Amino acid sequence: MSENTVDYHPMWERLGIDLEAHDALLGAIPQMYADAYLTQSARPGGMAYFDFVISEIHGLRIKELVDHKAAGGTVIGTFCLYVPEEIIRALGGLCVGLCAGAEWAYDEAERYLPRTTCALIKSAMGFKLGRVCPYAESADLVVGETTCDGKKKAYELLAEMCPVYVMELPQMKRAADRALWRGEIDRLVTKLEEVSGRTLDVQALKAATREVNDKRRALQRLNAARAARPAPISGRDALLAVQVAFYDDVPRFTQMVNAIADELEQRAADGVGVAPAESPRVLITGTPMSIPNWKVHTLVEQAGAVVVGEELCTGSRYYEQLVDESPDTLDGMLDAITDKYLDIDCACFTPNAARTDDVLRMARDLHADGIIHQALQFCAPYQIEATSLERAAKDAGYPVLRIDTDYSAEDLGQLSTRVEAFLEVLQ
Amino acid sequence: MSENTVDYHPMWERLGIDLEAHDALLGAIPQMYADAYLTQSARPGGMAYFDFVISEIHGLRIKELVDHKAAGGTVIGTFCLYVPEEIIRALGGLCVGLCAGAEWAYDEAERYLPRTTCALIKSAMGFKLGRVCPYAESADLVVGETTCDGKKKAYELLAEMCPVYVMELPQMKRAADRALWRGEIDRLVTKLEEVSGRTLDVQALKAATREVNDKRRALQRLNAARAARPAPISGRDALLAVQVAFYDDVPRFTQMVNAIADELEQRAADGVGVAPAESPRVLITGTPMSIPNWKVHTLVEQAGAVVVGEELCTGSRYYEQLVDESPDTLDGMLDAITDKYLDIDCACFTPNAARTDDVLRMARDLHADGIIHQALQFCAPYQIEATSLERAAKDAGYPVLRIDTDYSAEDLGQLSTRVEAFLEVLQ
Repeated sequence: MSENTVDYHPMWERLGIDLEAHDALLGAIPQMYADAYLTQSARPGGMAYFDFVISEIHGLRIKELVDHKAAGGTVIGTFCLYVPEEIIRALGGLCVGLCAGAEWAYDEAERYLPRTTCALIKSAMGFKLGRVCPYAESADLVVGETTCDGKKKAYELLAEMCPVYVMELPQMKRAADRALWRGEIDRLVTKLEEVSGRTLDVQALKAATREVNDKRRALQRLNAARAARPAPISGRDALLAVQVAFYDDVPRFTQMVNAIADELEQRAADGVGVAPAESPRVLITGTPMSIPNWKVHTLVEQAGAVVVGEELCTGSRYYEQLVDESPDTLDGMLDAITDKYLDIDCACFTPNAARTDDVLRMARDLHADGIIHQALQFCAPYQIEATSLERAAKDAGYPVLRIDTDYSAEDLGQLSTRVEAFLEVLQ
Repeated sequence: MSENTVDYHPMWERLGIDLEAHDALLGAIPQMYADAYLTQSARPGGMAYFDFVISEIHGLRIKELVDHKAAGGTVIGTFCLYVPEEIIRALGGLCVGLCAGAEWAYDEAERYLPRTTCALIKSAMGFKLGRVCPYAESADLVVGETTCDGKKKAYELLAEMCPVYVMELPQMKRAADRALWRGEIDRLVTKLEEVSGRTLDVQALKAATREVNDKRRALQRLNAARAARPAPISGRDALLAVQVAFYDDVPRFTQMVNAIADELEQRAADGVGVAPAESPRVLITGTPMSIPNWKVHTLVEQAGAVVVGEELCTGSRYYEQLVDESPDTLDGMLDAITDKYLDIDCACFTPNAARTDDVLRMARDLHADGIIHQALQFCAPYQIEATSLERAAKDAGYPVLRIDTDYSAEDLGQLSTRVEAFLEVLQ
């Protein structure tokens, strides 16, 4: 990790961060990162960029956000990939995912939310209540969505603490739902125009669409390279790239990921990998994993397997679909954005059989030997959908391990035993 | 309880019921009912009808359904009051709520659903898997809705076991949502026309609308009488009336409830009650309570209080809004149905501030001394909404007790202690 040479405390103080608590939080991350990441061998050289990004996770990037706001731009916080980054950027905003990957201030969060709330939501609320997420404190607006009961209702409480705008994601994908979602896109434009004081412009939206597509294309390249045997990059590193995509500077991120993709393609050509060619190959599907939640990937890879793909919001759901760049009118571009986002296969939709197809296709393309379904505890949509998905995967010949977990270390021993037993089946 | 004089076993067998398991289930209900209901003193004479209904819960009413089907009618099963009974009836259907109020075949249900699923959903799945709900086995179609994550995803699995059709309830109440819901009403008409082989007819819909409104008006009368001090009917009995409303014959039910309302109005005039005038008066709000879930009402009333109102789906949400009977065209009537159902204040909506208004209004009108928020464990929408509702109720001067529970008896001791402590505050 690089040493911070800049003292960011005055900046954090101006953002209203609880400095003492935040120092404790930031003090813990380097060790967590080192344990999960820096113990790996044969990492792609390009991952040095991500070491740097993580070392500056609440530093340099926050400074960029603050500078952006000082120059008249906005910062828009999100919790979900259904919020169109293209529109945010076209209106002079930076889109950042908010902190939600670690147990923090759960005691405070549980004054608002039931104990039986998924770790992601409880964590996000804890970070906000504990005032330790400079992304949340920098945001001019948080844009939520109605993807699950927990978030839908938690946004009502969050709205008492900061400006929140909620998009209604429909629950099916028929023409009527597409019409509702198209209207939501228009309403988001109106809201963001109001917050930014700007008017959505054809050229700006066209440029933003290309830019965000470029980010997705870079991630597609990086992830396609994982089909090689031996795998040229660990699952942890590939996961980290998507996690960082949620908040990093877009053109810089794209450039860095393309550089890593070059490296991985060369590795694949040379037969160079991060694990022996005969290591069991695992596809992970399920609920999103926010920084610093590297728990299941680390367990699986430290047990001798390699994770070759993530059918996750912090995985393929983030980068697989592109927005059609051909329309030349605002209406046409917003139509394309409407279609692209509705095309994501989240368990919040009913039915959601296309997700099973996605998982099986990825398992085939990435030469997975088995599938791990990872769900955060109390996440009903993914936990219930796992029943049919597991059946379909087994019918297709893939062994499946189901893990329901949270951000704590309490179940590590038990999970480790289950993962090891599962990997034995794959060998 | 009346003795069954008819042997319904051949009918149940024809429906595919697991007779042995079903006998065990039916054997348990009389004692549960006796403990909760028949120990009460000074019950309104009209409640004898409900004693009879419960004694015939899987008997006479099921025979009526079977006969109705034999005469060319349909039976439509539902889990939620958002499914418009008017349309079902106008197309020759009988609308019945499906069994979901007791722990049954949880071991089988947990092969499909996570352990951390609310009792209502797990119970419904258990009854279906265990083949002990003759309502489910009689249904030509189950009409579900997208009111919560758990049900939304459980219907996908239920659809593997029986014909299921899901209506998409929007999550907000703006013009765009109203438009989506209006379309859902039309699509339900099409589906039910297909299932019934009939065409929706103006006169039939008008008659059904009046009939179902009459049922609601009768329940409104019964419940309005509870404002009297002393309360002329127990909360348990008032709850039972709404629970039975979900599946009983509509005109007969309406007649019987109106008779009870007559009796209660006379009691109120005479100052006759089921508990001393000074008994603490409690309003209960939260998640629905299906037969035989009489747990919290029984605890509260056996501790010396009287429940004077239920802001529940098995309470005011069921009967408060009427469908406008003035339109004379199909389109106008379906508009009225659209508006009435969207007007219900379920926690599935965001925001749902109107529910807080409903609770405070009911507490005032019914002269409640305190409010109990009862939620089924793992029901995120109601559990999270309880945070703001509790705050508003306390601000309005009402003590609030929050209970998160399930259908088991395990927490009875602890709940009893908490309820008694709460009632002391009210005195």
